[in-house]
Amino acid sequence: MAKNLSVSVLMDYYGGLLTDKQKDAMELYYNQDFSLAEIAENMDISRQGVRDFIKRGEKQLEEFEEELGLLKLFAKINTELSSINDSLLALNKMKLSKETKDILSDLSEKVKKIENYL
Amino acid sequence: MAKNLSVSVLMDYYGGLLTDKQKDAMELYYNQDFSLAEIAENMDISRQGVRDFIKRGEKQLEEFEEELGLLKLFAKINTELSSINDSLLALNKMKLSKETKDILSDLSEKVKKIENYL
Repeated sequence: MAKNLSVSVLMDYYGGLLTDKQKDAMELYYNQDFSLAEIAENMDISRQGVRDFIKRGEKQLEEFEEELGLLKLFAKINTELSSINDSLLALNKMKLSKETKDILSDLSEKVKKIENYL
Repeated sequence: MAKNLSVSVLMDYYGGLLTDKQKDAMELYYNQDFSLAEIAENMDISRQGVRDFIKRGEKQLEEFEEELGLLKLFAKINTELSSINDSLLALNKMKLSKETKDILSDLSEKVKKIENYL
């Protein structure tokens, strides 16, 4: 079974919408690097059961992204934020009054806050 | 049946995760102001069936928000964006070079882009 690396990222966004067992199986497989056999033993189900949880979970995560598109949205927002930071860097190279610099530093903090929310 | 006004907002975010029939029933009820009887006739199901679609849908929307918290997240981002706009207004009142003003206007456009994404 090939590991799809974007699944781990999708889990960060949509993991809360999976069932607990799906989440457990996928967490062990994708984030803890357990083998299917190890997960089967750990969860006391068959290897095929584990495979089913993971396959179904992957499909659901892709459907969630198709419907909500959070990864795409957050990527677009991050691109703009990074470009805003470039503008702030350029502004800080200008000769500015103390008052202007203070407002800029305040603005910079607000941008950081948004970055931390994402 | 009391209409919960926040349901309409939740539908904007999570409507894509509902089944088509749920979405149809809730769209007619919450956004088109149809009565349960009118929706029942329109969808060719019982009035109780409509009520069930809507009640189950409402519950699911609330669960989606509980798990993903997009409304809360976007509200927090919007608060910061609005505060960033205040800083930009304050900056525009300062005496600044043409070059500095150009960078600020550019930065302003990027903030608007993020606002439009949300």
